[in-house]
Amino acid sequence: MIDLSPDDIAFLRQARVAHLATASAAGEPHVIPMCFAFDGTHLFTAIDAKPKRVPLGHLRRVRNLRENPRVSLVVDSYEEDWGRLRYVLIAGRGEILEEGDERERGLELLREKYSQYRAMPDLGRGPVIRIAPERVVAWHSTPSPGPA
Amino acid sequence: MIDLSPDDIAFLRQARVAHLATASAAGEPHVIPMCFAFDGTHLFTAIDAKPKRVPLGHLRRVRNLRENPRVSLVVDSYEEDWGRLRYVLIAGRGEILEEGDERERGLELLREKYSQYRAMPDLGRGPVIRIAPERVVAWHSTPSPGPA
Repeated sequence: MIDLSPDDIAFLRQARVAHLATASAAGEPHVIPMCFAFDGTHLFTAIDAKPKRVPLGHLRRVRNLRENPRVSLVVDSYEEDWGRLRYVLIAGRGEILEEGDERERGLELLREKYSQYRAMPDLGRGPVIRIAPERVVAWHSTPSPGPA
Repeated sequence: MIDLSPDDIAFLRQARVAHLATASAAGEPHVIPMCFAFDGTHLFTAIDAKPKRVPLGHLRRVRNLRENPRVSLVVDSYEEDWGRLRYVLIAGRGEILEEGDERERGLELLREKYSQYRAMPDLGRGPVIRIAPERVVAWHSTPSPGPA
């Protein structure tokens, strides 16, 4: 189990987008924004029906995960006040769920979180990725000292 | 040279944050949000004075680049209207500039873009990374058809 504060768990749960990095077996990295749901233990993301340039199973993130399950993902909020930056950075492993109860549960969590998915009848046509965190870094910038 | 439309160039130039993925020689990916400047050909990012947990030269992104220059980075804007999503995804190579004119030029571009850097006297104490794009994908979601 990873160690996250209740505040960091809340930050992960409310975030609308994360950035997921995978790498090919040859070590070529790939990063993509992703919608996701977090159940407190695993993160779930779906290859959804937003238009894609290639068949769903051929997407780079899916090919990379088949070759190399390691992932890095970050949830962050950018602010122009750099004293208020924060991120939660997770290293772990991603697994492609082609079928089964866990896959259905992941899709259900995604539908609960995103009304956009509830309006997509073909969500679930493509792979679902379940990410198991192994290491977490939660970082906050230090507010600059204000005037005395 | 990479092929970007004027609109995509403008999108890259105005973006305040990108997400940069690197990978270790062993293929472990790592993703981090980064501030950056784009001169139309290269992207520059600095290891700045925001508090870090380890010495600047030991940061994961720097260690990874020394082992493996491949990078993937994405600039995207998340919208709740999924008909308005877009991203520009760049694959390329990152080079650590320890000294020289290009490094100074990168720092100058960062100071021009971010007032926050102009207020940081110790910007430039750490490494500067110059990214040379090799492949670019610019993606827009298709707006869902509205009511007739």
